[in-house]
Amino acid sequence: MIDNKRIEFLKKDFVQGFPGYCGFKVEYAGKGKFQTSIEIRPEHTQQDGFVHAGLIAAMADHTAGYSAFTTVSEEFRILTIEFKINFLKPAKGKNLICRSKVLNRGKTIIVAESEIFSVNDMKEKLVAKATVTLIMVPASSFKR
Amino acid sequence: MIDNKRIEFLKKDFVQGFPGYCGFKVEYAGKGKFQTSIEIRPEHTQQDGFVHAGLIAAMADHTAGYSAFTTVSEEFRILTIEFKINFLKPAKGKNLICRSKVLNRGKTIIVAESEIFSVNDMKEKLVAKATVTLIMVPASSFKR
Amino acid sequence: MIDNKRIEFLKKDFVQGFPGYCGFKVEYAGKGKFQTSIEIRPEHTQQDGFVHAGLIAAMADHTAGYSAFTTVSEEFRILTIEFKINFLKPAKGKNLICRSKVLNRGKTIIVAESEIFSVNDMKEKLVAKATVTLIMVPASSFKR
Amino acid sequence: MIDNKRIEFLKKDFVQGFPGYCGFKVEYAGKGKFQTSIEIRPEHTQQDGFVHAGLIAAMADHTAGYSAFTTVSEEFRILTIEFKINFLKPAKGKNLICRSKVLNRGKTIIVAESEIFSVNDMKEKLVAKATVTLIMVPASSFKR
Repeated sequence: MIDNKRIEFLKKDFVQGFPGYCGFKVEYAGKGKFQTSIEIRPEHTQQDGFVHAGLIAAMADHTAGYSAFTTVSEEFRILTIEFKINFLKPAKGKNLICRSKVLNRGKTIIVAESEIFSVNDMKEKLVAKATVTLIMVPASSFKR
Repeated sequence: MIDNKRIEFLKKDFVQGFPGYCGFKVEYAGKGKFQTSIEIRPEHTQQDGFVHAGLIAAMADHTAGYSAFTTVSEEFRILTIEFKINFLKPAKGKNLICRSKVLNRGKTIIVAESEIFSVNDMKEKLVAKATVTLIMVPASSFKR
Repeated sequence: MIDNKRIEFLKKDFVQGFPGYCGFKVEYAGKGKFQTSIEIRPEHTQQDGFVHAGLIAAMADHTAGYSAFTTVSEEFRILTIEFKINFLKPAKGKNLICRSKVLNRGKTIIVAESEIFSVNDMKEKLVAKATVTLIMVPASSFKR
Repeated sequence: MIDNKRIEFLKKDFVQGFPGYCGFKVEYAGKGKFQTSIEIRPEHTQQDGFVHAGLIAAMADHTAGYSAFTTVSEEFRILTIEFKINFLKPAKGKNLICRSKVLNRGKTIIVAESEIFSVNDMKEKLVAKATVTLIMVPASSFKR
C-alpha cells in the first residue's frame, strides 16, 4: 500500500529539473495512477503555433514514470527504457492534461500508458497517446 | 535540390518556440540530414541528475522533423505522426549532439532516425535512438 | 454507416493469405472494432514453449488493420505504416483473443489499438498490447 | 567470445516452432549479428498480394532476438519486451532478407535493430526497419 507520506514525496519529487522548467504540475496521484497539467505558453509551441510534440512527449514520459513510482517502495528508482507516442490531433489551447496509468507491473519491468488531452472551454480532446516501458533500479546503485 | 537560401531559412525556423526555450542549436543541415546540439544545464535534468528523457525525446523529434523538412519544397509543412525512442544509457555530461537522417521519403510519409550522443572530453557515446514518422501537409491548409 | 454486407465481406477478406495460414479467425466486427481468435498449436510457439511474439504481433497488426477497414468505404484499402507492441506476460494456453479498436480516424491516417489476451479455463489474461498506425490508400491506385 | 559450437546451436535453435512454420532460414550468425532469409510463398501475403506486415514483423523480431542470443552465455534465455517496426515500402518479390544487429548490450536489457530487404534480380530494397527491446532471463527460471 502506498501511504500519504509517499504520495506527498512523489508530488514534490515530480517537478524537479526539466519538468519544473517546462511547467508541469501534479493534479492527482494514487496507486498506479498519476495526473498532471500544464498551462500553455508561447515557449511551448512549434513553428506552426501548435503545442510542440516534444513537450507533449516529455509530459507523457514523466507522468508515466511517476505512475510507475507509485507501485514501488522507496528502495527503487525508475528509469525509462523506451517509449512510443502517437500524435492524434494538433494540440492547441490553454491547457493540457496528462493521465497515466500502469498497464502491467512485472518483476523489474513496468509498462504504463499516458493519454494527453487539450482542454478548451472545459472540453477535453485526446491529442496524443503514449506507451512507456520503465525499469526498476535499486536506489543503492545510484552514486550521485 | 535544396539551395542555400532554404537551408538558412530552416536553420532559423528550427529554434522557434519550445526548441529555442530548451536551448537546441543547429550544427549542420543538408539534404535529408540535420544535426543539432545542446549545452546541458541544471534545468535539463531529472530527479537523479541525468539528462531528462523528455528533453532527449524533444531533441530527437525536432531534429528528425527538420531532416524531413530538407526534402520538401516550401509548399509543405511537416508534422510528427508518431515516434519511438530507446534510451540506451543514462545521459550525463556537458553536451548532447543529435544526428538525424531521412530513412525513407515516401509520397506523403517520411521516416527519419535520430541518434543522440553525450559528449564528454571530445568522446561521443550513443545514449538514445529514435525512429520518427512524419507527414507532409500542404502549407496552404494551415490557417494561422 | 457500415452495412451487414460490408461486414460479411471484411470477415471473409480477413483470412486470406498469411492470417489464414496462421489460423486467425474472426469473432466479431462492428464499426471501428474487430475481434479475432486463434487456437494455439505447436507451430505457433517459440524455443521456450510460449506463443511466439511474432505470431502475437501478426494478430495485433492484422486485427487492428481490419478495425480500420470498418471505418472506410470500399474505395479505400488499408496499409500498416508502423506498429509498436509490448509483451506484458509470456503467453501460454489453448487460445488467444485479440480485440482491436480505432483510437483516432483522421483524414488519411488511422490509429488503432490491439489488446491480446490468453484464455485458459474461461479466464482472460492481457498478454500484449499494440498501437498501430495505418494509412488509407485509394483502391484505384493498386494495380494487381 | 562466442564459439562455433554455440553458433551452430543457435542456428538450429532458431527454426523451432513458429519461425520454422513460417519458413525463415538462417544465413549468417556472428557476435551481435544475425541474418536470415525467407522464400515468399502465397501463404505469406496479405489481401493485396504484398508480403504480410505480420510476417515481416515476426522475422524482424525473431532475427533480432537471436542477434541478442549471440551476446549471452548459455545460462540465459532471451525474451522480447517490446518492438516497433516501420514499413517503408510494400514488400513484393521472391525473397526477403533480414539483417539484425545489437545496438546496445546492457546488464539485462539488450536493444537490437532489424532491417528487412526484398530481393528481386539480385537487387535489395529496404522495406522495413524495426527496433527490438529484449531482456536476458536466467535459463534456470524456466520450468519447462
